[in-house]
Amino acid sequence: MPIINHVASLHEEITGWRRDLHENPELLYDVHRTAAMVADKLKAFGCDEVVTGVGRTGVVGVIRGKSGKSGKVIGLRADMDALPIEEITGLPYASKVKGKMHACGHDGHTAMLLGAAKYLAESRNFDGTAVVIFQPAEEGGAGGKAMVDDGMMDRWGIQEVYGMHNAPGMPVGTFATRKGALLAASDFFSIDIEGKGSHAAEPHKGVDTLVVGANILLALQTIVARNLDPLKSGVVTVGAFNGGHANNVIPQHVKMLGTVRTLLPEVRDLLEKRVIETAQGIAAAYGAVAKVDYRRSYPVTVNHGRETDFAVSVAAEIAGRDKVEPDVTPIMGGEDFSFMLEARPGNMI
Amino acid sequence: MPIINHVASLHEEITGWRRDLHENPELLYDVHRTAAMVADKLKAFGCDEVVTGVGRTGVVGVIRGKSGKSGKVIGLRADMDALPIEEITGLPYASKVKGKMHACGHDGHTAMLLGAAKYLAESRNFDGTAVVIFQPAEEGGAGGKAMVDDGMMDRWGIQEVYGMHNAPGMPVGTFATRKGALLAASDFFSIDIEGKGSHAAEPHKGVDTLVVGANILLALQTIVARNLDPLKSGVVTVGAFNGGHANNVIPQHVKMLGTVRTLLPEVRDLLEKRVIETAQGIAAAYGAVAKVDYRRSYPVTVNHGRETDFAVSVAAEIAGRDKVEPDVTPIMGGEDFSFMLEARPGNMI
Amino acid sequence: MPIINHVASLHEEITGWRRDLHENPELLYDVHRTAAMVADKLKAFGCDEVVTGVGRTGVVGVIRGKSGKSGKVIGLRADMDALPIEEITGLPYASKVKGKMHACGHDGHTAMLLGAAKYLAESRNFDGTAVVIFQPAEEGGAGGKAMVDDGMMDRWGIQEVYGMHNAPGMPVGTFATRKGALLAASDFFSIDIEGKGSHAAEPHKGVDTLVVGANILLALQTIVARNLDPLKSGVVTVGAFNGGHANNVIPQHVKMLGTVRTLLPEVRDLLEKRVIETAQGIAAAYGAVAKVDYRRSYPVTVNHGRETDFAVSVAAEIAGRDKVEPDVTPIMGGEDFSFMLEARPGNMI
Amino acid sequence: MPIINHVASLHEEITGWRRDLHENPELLYDVHRTAAMVADKLKAFGCDEVVTGVGRTGVVGVIRGKSGKSGKVIGLRADMDALPIEEITGLPYASKVKGKMHACGHDGHTAMLLGAAKYLAESRNFDGTAVVIFQPAEEGGAGGKAMVDDGMMDRWGIQEVYGMHNAPGMPVGTFATRKGALLAASDFFSIDIEGKGSHAAEPHKGVDTLVVGANILLALQTIVARNLDPLKSGVVTVGAFNGGHANNVIPQHVKMLGTVRTLLPEVRDLLEKRVIETAQGIAAAYGAVAKVDYRRSYPVTVNHGRETDFAVSVAAEIAGRDKVEPDVTPIMGGEDFSFMLEARPGNMI
Repeated sequence: MPIINHVASLHEEITGWRRDLHENPELLYDVHRTAAMVADKLKAFGCDEVVTGVGRTGVVGVIRGKSGKSGKVIGLRADMDALPIEEITGLPYASKVKGKMHACGHDGHTAMLLGAAKYLAESRNFDGTAVVIFQPAEEGGAGGKAMVDDGMMDRWGIQEVYGMHNAPGMPVGTFATRKGALLAASDFFSIDIEGKGSHAAEPHKGVDTLVVGANILLALQTIVARNLDPLKSGVVTVGAFNGGHANNVIPQHVKMLGTVRTLLPEVRDLLEKRVIETAQGIAAAYGAVAKVDYRRSYPVTVNHGRETDFAVSVAAEIAGRDKVEPDVTPIMGGEDFSFMLEARPGNMI
Repeated sequence: MPIINHVASLHEEITGWRRDLHENPELLYDVHRTAAMVADKLKAFGCDEVVTGVGRTGVVGVIRGKSGKSGKVIGLRADMDALPIEEITGLPYASKVKGKMHACGHDGHTAMLLGAAKYLAESRNFDGTAVVIFQPAEEGGAGGKAMVDDGMMDRWGIQEVYGMHNAPGMPVGTFATRKGALLAASDFFSIDIEGKGSHAAEPHKGVDTLVVGANILLALQTIVARNLDPLKSGVVTVGAFNGGHANNVIPQHVKMLGTVRTLLPEVRDLLEKRVIETAQGIAAAYGAVAKVDYRRSYPVTVNHGRETDFAVSVAAEIAGRDKVEPDVTPIMGGEDFSFMLEARPGNMI
Repeated sequence: MPIINHVASLHEEITGWRRDLHENPELLYDVHRTAAMVADKLKAFGCDEVVTGVGRTGVVGVIRGKSGKSGKVIGLRADMDALPIEEITGLPYASKVKGKMHACGHDGHTAMLLGAAKYLAESRNFDGTAVVIFQPAEEGGAGGKAMVDDGMMDRWGIQEVYGMHNAPGMPVGTFATRKGALLAASDFFSIDIEGKGSHAAEPHKGVDTLVVGANILLALQTIVARNLDPLKSGVVTVGAFNGGHANNVIPQHVKMLGTVRTLLPEVRDLLEKRVIETAQGIAAAYGAVAKVDYRRSYPVTVNHGRETDFAVSVAAEIAGRDKVEPDVTPIMGGEDFSFMLEARPGNMI
Repeated sequence: MPIINHVASLHEEITGWRRDLHENPELLYDVHRTAAMVADKLKAFGCDEVVTGVGRTGVVGVIRGKSGKSGKVIGLRADMDALPIEEITGLPYASKVKGKMHACGHDGHTAMLLGAAKYLAESRNFDGTAVVIFQPAEEGGAGGKAMVDDGMMDRWGIQEVYGMHNAPGMPVGTFATRKGALLAASDFFSIDIEGKGSHAAEPHKGVDTLVVGANILLALQTIVARNLDPLKSGVVTVGAFNGGHANNVIPQHVKMLGTVRTLLPEVRDLLEKRVIETAQGIAAAYGAVAKVDYRRSYPVTVNHGRETDFAVSVAAEIAGRDKVEPDVTPIMGGEDFSFMLEARPGNMI
């Protein structure tokens, strides 16, 4: 029986798992129910080893192929956490937890990898070792980094890692990936502007932080327009600008929040440098002070060449050559799997 | 006994009233305790008429001079309301009401006018009629306008009105006023910018309201710098700019609040026109929409010439010529007494 | 015969002088023909002393009153230079010199003072000494300063100085002046922005001086809007912004020219400080350099109190009390006579 | 003898032609000497047909292969015009014409194609027909478009076109091209801002065009930063901003020049629309008028897939597979050959 038929026979079971997970979303590292369910299943499938608490609440399962320890050790990764969004879909299996929802499809990722684990554990028809990795906190918590930092790669001798993310805009049964940068580096910044509050009728007694902030915000637009090579990609977005409550008082503080997305390390460095210089320099010109807190979050998700060729060939074997796009346009969103791809060669599809 | 000695004999009593009022601040039109206290005192002083509920919660007392109805009918006005500010002075007579405080001195104004009423009712040594006016809601409620709209001027045949405001920066025993504009017209505006929200990594799918708002805010600065005659006075201040909560979402809405202060009707008209044109025009250039809600609040406080000369001469008689500044620089703050000075000639000192 | 009739008898002659001067305009210090004509006339009138070459090309005439050296020494000043403007009026006595014109009325000022000198020299009906001062280079050359620096005030013991400027907007026969600041201090600045030129298609290889300059220009607008007391007057104007020649090259240099007008020394200092800080600070935020050349030109024209009262009383005596405005609004234009009023008390009317 | 050796034997001759052309640069359509020299050579080589005056001053030569009319008709194109730049290289064969120089290498292009024509005419060892095309006015004159509009493609039945451009940054002997967009569309705009001039001290009597222009220039930066998909390429550059001459006059007019570079038709449309909207909208918000003259110049140079594969394979055959980059990053510069590639499939390398 070809693999695809085997997996098809698991379809109903996997769907059931997904719906159960969808009804019970958990956030960030607080994925205790999900992790327990995953660990229980992995043990029931007969995994050779099941370890919980990796990177705080991650789960790792080890499945050795028929020929014992020979062959490669391959990591397959899924993510378990949901988002702080209220579900209003009205689906029969909608979230039972107020203010939480599997809106990014991690329920599907986890269920799919459980299905793969079940198949691999039953069939064992491969050389080497499969390590199934279920990470917490993909959404803003860097749970993948936590598992790498916890020594996962060395502990199980993982040689390559593969991940998969659903893509709602693509037809069912198709795949897309690319060598090199697939997803953007996502960095975050906040700018705190401190001026001098005053009565609205006496602006000369203060330093107007709203004017300073507005000038900074416009000057930040020139970074992508003027400092970035037009043939390279980058985004500098301010998402929040908040200062003052009243018509008649000039506020002493303004706070801006923003994000920078890039696909190349040198562009990442450049934009960080320019965001900080711009905010601090403009504020100083007005006699105000801008404190910039710039935090690098997920790095660029960089697919390795050989492993991407391999992933594309496998996908083509299953879905058909014409259903696999091997050189898709990158996406400016970010992904925690980047940390695993920094630690080991691999591919996200 | 000269007037000043008579009034001095009331000093302790007036101080007691002020402290009682200071301990019991009330806001806007909800000055029920204060108005009742005022009305009780006026009756006790023997006023010829005491009417409450004028302009919702204002109080009017009428005191006729010895010579009966002959002579002028003169209005003397005080304001009774406090501010929504927490008192942290630690004074023995500090506010007993959390979050409310007589921070603008209206407790003093009311006590002073009560003292004057007591003296006038006792002595009756004047021609004509004194009408003592205690208004609610000076701080943002236009209680003075409410009393005028309630027919007060005609009902008691008031011919002139006089008001007094304390000035903490001036030495005790000195007076200052000027003919013409003393206090500014205070107008208020809010600008609601509606663009199109989008993910921070996909700015091209939205219309970035923060960029629009920042440009409007900077463009508003050019009104005073470029559209206003440099020899005339005006202020355009944005006091609040709020949009967005997250680093990674471009907000669909931004709200700005601001105020315009002017001393001349034609400048008032010009700045209103330019604020609206600027906000709407800049927003349109970006494909956004700015709704401007522009509300005219207190008009310019314009002192009348003859009445100001009179007030200055009276002040000089009592305090000494050298203690009265008859041509002080105007102030960009606003005052509800403007409405009474629009209805009748008079002076604020 | 009253003074006014005496002067009236000179009307035709004065008009003739004015038209002669109008036909022969000279610029700045190159007023050789004008100065020679003035000196010739003064000698012909019988002045006690006529000195040329004061402050390069200024002329001074001394006329002693009947009672000899007793009484005050009073300076009366006119200006002789024209403007580099092409006359297109078509008047019979229009300028004969291409590109030069008496467009600011100095021909009239000079003719009027010649008339006064003729009258004074003939009548001698005054105590003290009249010193008639004809200065070059009022229009941007500080010829008045040059005469003061040349020792004129001490050399002739001048105790007070008076000047007069025509005002085309006022009815014939009326006068206006004010105590204190009458005309503004005029300062000039140039801002040279040095960035890094690049091809238009490769902005990332340059530092775009046009973006830097545009931001500086907008930020300069906030000085009057935010840093200046709304009750005080000031102007910051950029009059020229020039950078680049081609569509497809980002220029390395941009040059801005501007002026600052103020009526108070502390405002003058504040605006100078803010112009320099703003230009340098904004440029630095973009990685460019702004060199600001800030030159103080004419100071505020400050009329002295006693001398202004005197000038007003004299004007009222001649023209009638109702034809003299003693407290006119100041004007943001500048005047070289300021230097003489800094050296000696006096009045400009 | 392999082709490369044949061509090598022409090396000295081709170099001689190039130096002759380099010494005698001609601009735009005024390439009379160059065109005559090209036509003479082509006739001397024995071309079957030589036609001048195509697209005003272009030259076309036809060389039929041994097998007569069978096979494809292939166009090979070079450009003949120089640039209005002063040569300061000091080379022995430097330009003899003041203010003109072959700074973009068209002398080399022309010489190379002459060499190819000589070889093809001598050897005739090919099927089909070679049409050698020498165009005028590549630098800003659209001479390629002129030749296409003149009916060249149909007149000689050209089926494919190939062009070559030197690349000084690449090692000698290497080639680079790509399928799809290789060079950008170059569009040009000018923005004339009309406000109202006034004296610098009376900004309220004017509409300050420098403020309007500065705001437009900053707002134009937001087009690439906010309206352009971050994964697509585009440039909006203002290269010149000129308004005013004096410190003390607010100019009535400001003129801006700029260019837009894009690689995709939909991006080209979007940026054009936004440049016009932004300039007109911002100007209107200030009460000024911006007239935008937007001229589309060269379209995107789009290489066709099959023809690019063919060009790459030929280049690889001659230079070696490792000397040919088949997927180079596009360049934001523009190229007139785009018009020929719009008319027929082909490749520029």
